[in-house]
Amino acid sequence: MTMAKRDTYTPASLLAVAVEVFNERGYDGTSMEHLSRAAGISKSSIYHHVRGKEELLRLAISRALDGLFGILEERASKDGRAIDRLEHVTRRTAEVLMEELPYVTLLLRVRGNTDTERWAMARRREFDQQVAELLKRAAADGDLRPDVDVRLATRLLFGMINSIVEWYRPQGGHGGHEDGDEVAEAVVRMAFAGLRTA
Amino acid sequence: MTMAKRDTYTPASLLAVAVEVFNERGYDGTSMEHLSRAAGISKSSIYHHVRGKEELLRLAISRALDGLFGILEERASKDGRAIDRLEHVTRRTAEVLMEELPYVTLLLRVRGNTDTERWAMARRREFDQQVAELLKRAAADGDLRPDVDVRLATRLLFGMINSIVEWYRPQGGHGGHEDGDEVAEAVVRMAFAGLRTA
Repeated sequence: MTMAKRDTYTPASLLAVAVEVFNERGYDGTSMEHLSRAAGISKSSIYHHVRGKEELLRLAISRALDGLFGILEERASKDGRAIDRLEHVTRRTAEVLMEELPYVTLLLRVRGNTDTERWAMARRREFDQQVAELLKRAAADGDLRPDVDVRLATRLLFGMINSIVEWYRPQGGHGGHEDGDEVAEAVVRMAFAGLRTA
Repeated sequence: MTMAKRDTYTPASLLAVAVEVFNERGYDGTSMEHLSRAAGISKSSIYHHVRGKEELLRLAISRALDGLFGILEERASKDGRAIDRLEHVTRRTAEVLMEELPYVTLLLRVRGNTDTERWAMARRREFDQQVAELLKRAAADGDLRPDVDVRLATRLLFGMINSIVEWYRPQGGHGGHEDGDEVAEAVVRMAFAGLRTA
């Protein structure tokens, strides 16, 4: 039985509930009614916190983007050889994805039907673009294999990192790879050194 | 304007239309009405070809699975060192994914609400399992980096390969990587040799 409960939500805790519903039903398939039921508070209580579901989406996507763009501001992303900065950004992107799993999952699934979704996709492309720039510089330094196509490598690199959302569950759920550090390290090894013994 | 047209469909051409609709709307979100509209023929004409949408799903998934399991029967997947067989299977999996793009896309998206979907997921796990076995043998031969966790590496390898469905478009559409051979080669290089110059 669902009972309306007293509204003790903070913006962050309400957001956490909303993101779960968005990821489960899809953003398009989620109504304020669904959010109200999942949160156990009335729609008007939700409107007390936010203007509507698009604002919740914007807040959730912002959290994912802040995490990702924050990586580019880290010292190890800015100083040193491009190839080492690229490795750092790769490891940290995998880590942020796992730390902010529901938020980044939502970011990766938006499809561009509203202004907020289109903004999310544009910002995501911007991030990918900055990583592609690092790949280009590493190639210019002679640190990338000469037969690497930068655009293609960027896509495959993000393909590998982003696929983590499909199976990673933090509390050692059925996936069993609860150790985020181990996962991030495996991504870096595979992407930069490959599986084969030298 | 949509007009009912004469039913000149073959099983294969009707399947191609159905798979397009499944991928666009999701299998759950597709009704016989949607299929009838997309094909431009009546529902009863569709029932003349198949028993219903679940049979169309089964046929489509079978086509993807036949392509994938066919790889494992190829000589280069069966003879030689495990690491070389693994490279062959990786390249061919990427190629089959691109050749049978809509069918493999559908296979990767099924979520297990019907018997057919559960069967598809079980067969897909079986394929992943056989590739994981090859990784294990390559590790036992000393051809895989000793710090590689087989389960994790299998997941990341498929994560990279499967991500191709997100952007690859065969006719040089907006993706621009129309050359399937180049893409498959890039996957193999990245997975086995890594991006970094030795």
